Amino acid sequence: MAGAFWKTSISKVEPNKIVVRGYNLMDLIGKYNYADLTYLLWRGELPSTEHSRMMDALLTVCLEHSLNAPSVDAARFVASSGVPLQTAVSAGIAAIGEWHGGAIEQAAKVFQEAVTRMNENQTSPAEMAEEILREHSERNIKVPGFGHPTHTQDPRTVKLIEIAKHTGLYGTHVELAQNMESRTEKVFGKHLILNVDGCIAAVISDMGFDWRLGKGFFIVSRTPGLIAHAFEQMYRERPYKAPDWSEIAYTGPPERKPPK
Amino acid sequence: MAGAFWKTSISKVEPNKIVVRGYNLMDLIGKYNYADLTYLLWRGELPSTEHSRMMDALLTVCLEHSLNAPSVDAARFVASSGVPLQTAVSAGIAAIGEWHGGAIEQAAKVFQEAVTRMNENQTSPAEMAEEILREHSERNIKVPGFGHPTHTQDPRTVKLIEIAKHTGLYGTHVELAQNMESRTEKVFGKHLILNVDGCIAAVISDMGFDWRLGKGFFIVSRTPGLIAHAFEQMYRERPYKAPDWSEIAYTGPPERKPPK
Amino acid sequence: MAGAFWKTSISKVEPNKIVVRGYNLMDLIGKYNYADLTYLLWRGELPSTEHSRMMDALLTVCLEHSLNAPSVDAARFVASSGVPLQTAVSAGIAAIGEWHGGAIEQAAKVFQEAVTRMNENQTSPAEMAEEILREHSERNIKVPGFGHPTHTQDPRTVKLIEIAKHTGLYGTHVELAQNMESRTEKVFGKHLILNVDGCIAAVISDMGFDWRLGKGFFIVSRTPGLIAHAFEQMYRERPYKAPDWSEIAYTGPPERKPPK
Amino acid sequence: MAGAFWKTSISKVEPNKIVVRGYNLMDLIGKYNYADLTYLLWRGELPSTEHSRMMDALLTVCLEHSLNAPSVDAARFVASSGVPLQTAVSAGIAAIGEWHGGAIEQAAKVFQEAVTRMNENQTSPAEMAEEILREHSERNIKVPGFGHPTHTQDPRTVKLIEIAKHTGLYGTHVELAQNMESRTEKVFGKHLILNVDGCIAAVISDMGFDWRLGKGFFIVSRTPGLIAHAFEQMYRERPYKAPDWSEIAYTGPPERKPPK
Repeated sequence: MAGAFWKTSISKVEPNKIVVRGYNLMDLIGKYNYADLTYLLWRGELPSTEHSRMMDALLTVCLEHSLNAPSVDAARFVASSGVPLQTAVSAGIAAIGEWHGGAIEQAAKVFQEAVTRMNENQTSPAEMAEEILREHSERNIKVPGFGHPTHTQDPRTVKLIEIAKHTGLYGTHVELAQNMESRTEKVFGKHLILNVDGCIAAVISDMGFDWRLGKGFFIVSRTPGLIAHAFEQMYRERPYKAPDWSEIAYTGPPERKPPK
Repeated sequence: MAGAFWKTSISKVEPNKIVVRGYNLMDLIGKYNYADLTYLLWRGELPSTEHSRMMDALLTVCLEHSLNAPSVDAARFVASSGVPLQTAVSAGIAAIGEWHGGAIEQAAKVFQEAVTRMNENQTSPAEMAEEILREHSERNIKVPGFGHPTHTQDPRTVKLIEIAKHTGLYGTHVELAQNMESRTEKVFGKHLILNVDGCIAAVISDMGFDWRLGKGFFIVSRTPGLIAHAFEQMYRERPYKAPDWSEIAYTGPPERKPPK
Repeated sequence: MAGAFWKTSISKVEPNKIVVRGYNLMDLIGKYNYADLTYLLWRGELPSTEHSRMMDALLTVCLEHSLNAPSVDAARFVASSGVPLQTAVSAGIAAIGEWHGGAIEQAAKVFQEAVTRMNENQTSPAEMAEEILREHSERNIKVPGFGHPTHTQDPRTVKLIEIAKHTGLYGTHVELAQNMESRTEKVFGKHLILNVDGCIAAVISDMGFDWRLGKGFFIVSRTPGLIAHAFEQMYRERPYKAPDWSEIAYTGPPERKPPK
Repeated sequence: MAGAFWKTSISKVEPNKIVVRGYNLMDLIGKYNYADLTYLLWRGELPSTEHSRMMDALLTVCLEHSLNAPSVDAARFVASSGVPLQTAVSAGIAAIGEWHGGAIEQAAKVFQEAVTRMNENQTSPAEMAEEILREHSERNIKVPGFGHPTHTQDPRTVKLIEIAKHTGLYGTHVELAQNMESRTEKVFGKHLILNVDGCIAAVISDMGFDWRLGKGFFIVSRTPGLIAHAFEQMYRERPYKAPDWSEIAYTGPPERKPPK
């Protein structure tokens, strides 16, 4: 085995048996739901009841946002060109990037590093919140996980915090994030809401997730919707989606002749 | 609105409100789980208790199969080359094809057309099963959803049928599929098991799903595992995965000189 | 070597030497251009002077078509979401499908099968052209490679045929395709132009290419443009491209309350 | 036009006319080759004779490297799963990442910033070369574009420099890169060759390209080969490629029973 090309701690397969993180998958089906098994795959352990409830909320709260998401537009353009369903979904997932779901990772990193500093320096969440905001303000960069172009209060943030409190999982990272939100106006001169990316980031940090898994939550959340959009485009709409010429402004050089 | 570039029946977004298939998403979070909301996205309605249980089993039963899946190998090669997590997952989903998860769609089509014929011709599942197998045998094509290179009895099929019976969702399509399985030896000269693709195909057909959504189940099932594999490759293994030269046999022409 | 995991006839690599289809790649650089080496990779042989000229024309004639191509729209949406350049290009290539570049493959298959029948049955191009059109008309399916939503005469077709004549590569497949074009009005009641997909299909058939390589020509042609579009979107435009809400019509059910 | 959804300086299309960067595409076909038109798309201008020759060499010199490239392995796994050709190619391109082709971008950035400093501080290439290497050594990071696991002298680097000298395009960036190569042993204690990524980076910098276009050269170079590999996998090999179980080492927890 030492020389095996691949190594994995995730699962092993034998004839008539599939073992995931040590558990026979068939012992789990029907007892643990999709969110539980996602947790198992990512953490290596089954979740507690509280983590189970929170995990399910995390994977559903940003389920859909209509065409106001580059991933959905990309998936639908691809779907219109005559490809199998999974190709369009794949393109949609490729479009989850630093400006689209990526703030979960970035914000979780900020929160986790800040909480480490809080613990080291015995700082309060309120003090640390202002410190972090000022650091971003001074370097003239956006604070990931704050602000939204459509929502003035992100309903998904409200819901997640409600469930975090209800399950007893409300912890220092969410407390810090809320302290940051309430000080954005003071530091930046305008109120920036804690958006769903930022809130997911804070909650998964309280749950002990590695910040580098942040985009995983967004990918799983959006996959069923990308499938629904690709399906709708393929079977309810005309093929070969393209914008009207009036929607394309040409800004290049005027017509000219080549030297040869 | 008549002239809007996009049309969708899936969701709409207003400031502070996200509506999915008519429901305010925030009214659903915490009450309906991930499988329920996937059902809602794909069917337009919330599932009954029985459909909810079955849906969750369908989305978890083929969660993982280790590296014995081209999608996982592809995702891990991509992950090793220095790209963001979602890019590797996207490549894994692109690898779900006609020979990898695609049998769900193909088998669901076969089962649904066969049940229509059964109903029209008042044929029994046993008769129709043999008829379908013979048609494939005569055209010398494989029956989608049957046979497996590793498993002699697919444990996932056993589990799904158990849950289908328990929830009262066991219906004509699964009955037909099992009748087909028990006649494969008679028609093809060797026993071909009803594999998980074939069983999912039969169960979703009994639940009333459009066969063209078949790959959707496989995509959602495998996405958390693809994320786990990509993560493991990126953060636990060395970059730039490549086979040893001894694993690559060159079968091209001998060395030669170009005319110029 | 018998047990090597991979087999390939395309290239082999040794320390300080790369051999492509038998040729030391360094013996070719500077003497054979990009189109020649693409030909070598796909055919296993270096092209004649005529094939070289034609190949280059085939790979450049459909270089760009602005945003009127789902692949470009998809690539630009992906590029806007904060991902590396290659991810956006990859999504663009994923969008080359049956309705977008795919007609090359389909038409080349039609032309190659038709020419085989012509040879077997001693039919003239004119007779066979009408026969093929009538077969499509009777089955009520579109003839791949004919018709265009923007162009009334596809300038790319004109150019390719000019070069095919000039290089002496004008052959039976192009002759058949032109015979088909001139009979579309008779059979379908309206003139359908031989579009660039159809013309590429006919030319590569005359050159002896396998029809299943058809999309390869389109992919290579469009890749530099996809790179230019992704670059422009990433560095000249704002991130997170999304349509205005007025461009998204919601066609789903009215708002309602969930049972739970 | 002010309100058009898309803006592009790359091309415009009118009935029967396609204009690329101001030129009627049909005026170019047959006179300018694929490399020239790629240059036009990326620079906005047609190349000089020297730039044309160099461009073609840049786009062909790293054409193929067999399976010793994660992109090719990924593309072939995807191709084996039963998908269209372009899907496999798309996955291959997605695998071009920071460790696979990405050094072009990184090295071009290093060279361009270094040459700016040379000009500002009147430093010689030899001095600057050592300075840059020391900076990397002190920060304990690799110098992008140097070193290769297979080649002890990269034949592609030799060829590119030969053509750069021949066309008169050998400039300060390549000079700097060669000065760096000859000082790697002094600074790092072992000789690191200027590899093809590093050499392309230096040459395109001398030609005036934006370093952020670096991966574009690698993408275009590898696309025809990815097509050849995908085609070979689809039509010459068995479907559903998967490693033997002996090649997969399971490193997870031992088997255990779930609490429920």
